[in-house]
Amino acid sequence: MPGKLGEREIIRILTGIYGKGTRSPLDFDDDVAAVPLTGKRWMILKSDMLVGSTDVPPGMSLWQAGRKAVVATVSDFAAKGIRPRALMVSLGLPASFGKRAILEIGSGLDKGAREYQCKIVGGDTNQSDDLVIDCTGAGECDPGTLVRRDGARPGDVVAVTGKFGNSAAGLRLLLSKKKMNWSRAGTLTRAVFLPRARLKEGLILARTGMATSSIDSSDGLAWSLHELARSSSVGIHLETVPLAREAKEFAEKNGISPVELALYGGEEYELVVTVRREGFERVRRRVPALIPIGRVRQGPPAVTANVGEKTIRVEARGWEHFRKNVND
Amino acid sequence: MPGKLGEREIIRILTGIYGKGTRSPLDFDDDVAAVPLTGKRWMILKSDMLVGSTDVPPGMSLWQAGRKAVVATVSDFAAKGIRPRALMVSLGLPASFGKRAILEIGSGLDKGAREYQCKIVGGDTNQSDDLVIDCTGAGECDPGTLVRRDGARPGDVVAVTGKFGNSAAGLRLLLSKKKMNWSRAGTLTRAVFLPRARLKEGLILARTGMATSSIDSSDGLAWSLHELARSSSVGIHLETVPLAREAKEFAEKNGISPVELALYGGEEYELVVTVRREGFERVRRRVPALIPIGRVRQGPPAVTANVGEKTIRVEARGWEHFRKNVND
Repeated sequence: MPGKLGEREIIRILTGIYGKGTRSPLDFDDDVAAVPLTGKRWMILKSDMLVGSTDVPPGMSLWQAGRKAVVATVSDFAAKGIRPRALMVSLGLPASFGKRAILEIGSGLDKGAREYQCKIVGGDTNQSDDLVIDCTGAGECDPGTLVRRDGARPGDVVAVTGKFGNSAAGLRLLLSKKKMNWSRAGTLTRAVFLPRARLKEGLILARTGMATSSIDSSDGLAWSLHELARSSSVGIHLETVPLAREAKEFAEKNGISPVELALYGGEEYELVVTVRREGFERVRRRVPALIPIGRVRQGPPAVTANVGEKTIRVEARGWEHFRKNVND
Repeated sequence: MPGKLGEREIIRILTGIYGKGTRSPLDFDDDVAAVPLTGKRWMILKSDMLVGSTDVPPGMSLWQAGRKAVVATVSDFAAKGIRPRALMVSLGLPASFGKRAILEIGSGLDKGAREYQCKIVGGDTNQSDDLVIDCTGAGECDPGTLVRRDGARPGDVVAVTGKFGNSAAGLRLLLSKKKMNWSRAGTLTRAVFLPRARLKEGLILARTGMATSSIDSSDGLAWSLHELARSSSVGIHLETVPLAREAKEFAEKNGISPVELALYGGEEYELVVTVRREGFERVRRRVPALIPIGRVRQGPPAVTANVGEKTIRVEARGWEHFRKNVND
């Protein structure tokens, strides 16, 4: 959020107001919000707002923007191991949009919902200067099955559901003026245009009872790791930075740091989880996508990583909006 | 929605896509969306998006805009007789907004939530050109207690929870260039700046088991009556048009039709309900605000009203956004 205040400062101000005198079962900054209905049943809610001028990169179609809005919301449910039952979608639409544009957005939203077996049950429609797609997911769960952010314990394995960097590389490709004639370009831009949420993996992980903490990676891998470390009051050390092959090639071709792409890029929708050491191999058989990348350590919340021969401190920098990156 | 397509046409296109192959327990155009969790329990959701350039009239503060966004969402729950348990609020904020603006919006939202004993549990924050406040309420209910739109039966009493026209008059006052030095001006602008949702009344009405159909009046009284008539396949005749005193005076002073203000103005948040004739007096003792205005009749969905010595046909015109009215 490149305005006068950062996005996190705005959230701090707002949660300071909303949170006064009330107790929530989950922190305001967890992936989802929980509303206890009974001791055994929580309602789970998550909203994700996509704004045309800051969240829709050049080249992304309205269909893809609609679908992505759903993926972003579902991804947070995935991280907690909860199935979203229904989606509400509010649209702010520029006055210039005709029937074709509406059909495109609506079909993209519908496709996203069907991919994750949830239904769009309602919403609202307004005219606005910017395209706005606000997608709210709703589900429910037994509190015991929800995988929080604060359960990581020293010795746990740190793992991710896929490799990182393609989305950050794809975004750089789309934002750069020069066309790139390169066979892998499609893989990179596809990572931006057609992200997927790891709902299946998240649901299985939660059911194993072995995942001690979990978060999605829409703000970048580094940010997610720092969030788990901070919430759980532990340190995290990565033996390896999970870098996608195409992102590595892109970085080499363009003289930029591949580790930078993997750690501080975004918007990826992989899950970042910690799993009890003794259960890890069993969990991995059920979630073959899972890649172990490090260990939880005792100590103050800090994140370090082996990069080549060196150990680096991973910074608590995250992904904000692409408009920010353009101005970097 | 003054764009190329009307708001209702856009909703028709979208629900045509979302609704394909699925069955919902409530129509897409009912006040809320329902998600059956078990036979005895439905999750209830409602989103209402407020956009600065079309929904915030001149003179309305950010605090009032925040509070109004909550009122608009709660009002639909009120119409169905369901308590919203939690609210999610997504904000699109112009880059120019500083800490003071955020505090104002947040405090207005929080005030609205507290008035109706529900909690803001989460949301999202983005930069956007327009101010956008999208408020999603979530609750649950026993399907048997929800008051639908399609239950009105011939003979039922048509009633409202308050008189109409002040909000439409207030809006005209705010949009007109000339200042009005008149003791009632404050009452009219207050109706615009500080609307209230009839949650208490809606909850009691539902509990009496005597309300056969219900809708809120945010699109105007005429539109609400037509919706009840259409959904229930009945006619509605008003013996009287419930016109607020201040709106009547405003109309007389300005040479405009008072009935026009009451029927086709908006955004009012009164409830429009039908109640079984034999239970009406009993219901009214429990909801003293209730004003009987007419009767449900057998016949095709049409709405008529006694105005003076004449019977008029009430048109199916509704409130859209105030920007539209400015251009009238």
